[in-house]
Amino acid sequence: MQSNRVGEQTLNFFSPVAIASFASIVGPKEGKGPLGTGFDYVLPDNLYGQKSWEKTEQKMMEHCLNLALAKKNYLPKDLDFFLAGDLLNQIIPSSFTGRSLGVPFLGLYGACSTLVEGLVLGSIIINGGFGKKVAVSSSSHHETAERQLRYPTEMGVQRTMTAQWTVTGCGAFILEDNADNAQIIITQGIIGKVIDLGQANAMDMGAAMAPAAADTIIRYFKDTGRIPEDFDLIVTGDLGNIGRILCQELVLQNGYDISKNYTDCGVLIYDPSQDTHAGGSGCGCSASVLAGYILPQILAGKLRNVFFIGTGALLSPTSAQQGETIPGIAHGIGIQAKGVD
Amino acid sequence: MQSNRVGEQTLNFFSPVAIASFASIVGPKEGKGPLGTGFDYVLPDNLYGQKSWEKTEQKMMEHCLNLALAKKNYLPKDLDFFLAGDLLNQIIPSSFTGRSLGVPFLGLYGACSTLVEGLVLGSIIINGGFGKKVAVSSSSHHETAERQLRYPTEMGVQRTMTAQWTVTGCGAFILEDNADNAQIIITQGIIGKVIDLGQANAMDMGAAMAPAAADTIIRYFKDTGRIPEDFDLIVTGDLGNIGRILCQELVLQNGYDISKNYTDCGVLIYDPSQDTHAGGSGCGCSASVLAGYILPQILAGKLRNVFFIGTGALLSPTSAQQGETIPGIAHGIGIQAKGVD
Repeated sequence: MQSNRVGEQTLNFFSPVAIASFASIVGPKEGKGPLGTGFDYVLPDNLYGQKSWEKTEQKMMEHCLNLALAKKNYLPKDLDFFLAGDLLNQIIPSSFTGRSLGVPFLGLYGACSTLVEGLVLGSIIINGGFGKKVAVSSSSHHETAERQLRYPTEMGVQRTMTAQWTVTGCGAFILEDNADNAQIIITQGIIGKVIDLGQANAMDMGAAMAPAAADTIIRYFKDTGRIPEDFDLIVTGDLGNIGRILCQELVLQNGYDISKNYTDCGVLIYDPSQDTHAGGSGCGCSASVLAGYILPQILAGKLRNVFFIGTGALLSPTSAQQGETIPGIAHGIGIQAKGVD
Repeated sequence: MQSNRVGEQTLNFFSPVAIASFASIVGPKEGKGPLGTGFDYVLPDNLYGQKSWEKTEQKMMEHCLNLALAKKNYLPKDLDFFLAGDLLNQIIPSSFTGRSLGVPFLGLYGACSTLVEGLVLGSIIINGGFGKKVAVSSSSHHETAERQLRYPTEMGVQRTMTAQWTVTGCGAFILEDNADNAQIIITQGIIGKVIDLGQANAMDMGAAMAPAAADTIIRYFKDTGRIPEDFDLIVTGDLGNIGRILCQELVLQNGYDISKNYTDCGVLIYDPSQDTHAGGSGCGCSASVLAGYILPQILAGKLRNVFFIGTGALLSPTSAQQGETIPGIAHGIGIQAKGVD
């Protein structure tokens, strides 16, 4: 059988997969941030007419998928699969969105790496000839994540300066097999290993995830022979200010200087004046920044070759309480404007 | 591009995927059940030398994977991917097993349908030429699941007669691309839709999952033109006694009589004298029964053609407390002895 791999572990999509449509929704705080004008919809408030924040998160994902479908005049029944995940226990917003859509559903969990996990799996499904149209989404909501993973926001617990701010946001993407008319394509993917250097502070997730991000970036460069200069932009999911610096340093120690064209979705989404401390995080951070900022930049001709790395911290409140350290994981995809080598 | 689909939604693995190795581990109660002698290892007690049940579940999955690898003299580094999931918040046992293995990891969440979700995705990866050896696993532990999803077992809350008993168990499977020397192959897969007929009783999960199981079984028969008599065995993941009857009835209403060769892993794993009420459940139920009973029956020549359907209930304590009903999902795979049409 044909091998669709490059080097040790990088996947090559010989028939490039089209990102045919995409949409983004964020909360009010993210809407006031530096990328605010790029998102398709900004929630009027954190509840969006629902009785609980969890239901808000579900409604946000449903709305975001419908926006992505509507941009191409697609209906849910046009989709072969729906791949999604989020931060909540038993990924309820994703499963319940799957219920609304009525499309064969694959639930994923990779913390904030979930979106890229879905984009890689969706590309594999399409490249393998198992589907023609695949929707991928991930979301997070500040209040649902904080009360589940840390403290209810009503408690007003003081946050450390290393803590990141969970983004209220969602991104939805429609992948397709026919890339002939596509403007944006996914050409490669790499799946991350679970890396743990022993960080155990749940208020400093960037430091926990940075080694996994660096590992994936280094493996990708080694596999493909590419160098940082081959890309207009290398962007990690949500390491935030602290993790971004650590990641850059770890990659440099392995011989690759990414300092000239590297940034992070958690750094981009908020302005320092918004007092989020170490930046944004959450499944919805990288998803909304990809759909609301990076892909539009490709469409506008400002970016042509992007290496996008989703990063996740694989902890639970139970694992933290039982004294476990926090492993990280990072998955990557190569995204290009059509016609770029 | 070649379409690897049959009918509307069934996936066809034209190059059959080998189940090259598999292993099962269960807890003491399951070891005393009717299938007890078939499992590779029975835990001496519910803690297995660990300080918490959560760590036990992780150790069980690590042990189970090592058993499956050892049967073929494989090492973790021989694996291209590890796909796994479980019931615990943020799928910690699976992620932490991924950390031990050091293999590119894809985290899944489909409640008790997770194993079959992983087997279908693993088969897609292999058929698409993206990997040659893929490990798939799922687990559950009675005490970790009960205290997270219902009540801590120490409380001694009386269980309803419709309640199922979460299995302490794990199954691990090594899928391979070269099926020439394989004795067992996966030939088809079908991904489930999220189906919700409005059941809201978390003490009767079988009834919540049965409509999803029936939907997947009916779609598979329609897509493939197969009939129940084409199989030696049709087996659902863990609907238990009550869900099994509902599923059979729903499938019959659609013109397919599966009564002659249909059973359920949750029915098989315990003897009625073990007082589990409606039978077994949990990600580890279908995983351990597949690895400890069904696949060995195929190897022994007693079964040749099996349609195996993993069933999951997509609820969380939060969704239940917020008044949501319980959607179900079911994924299916066709498993055959090599050489069977």
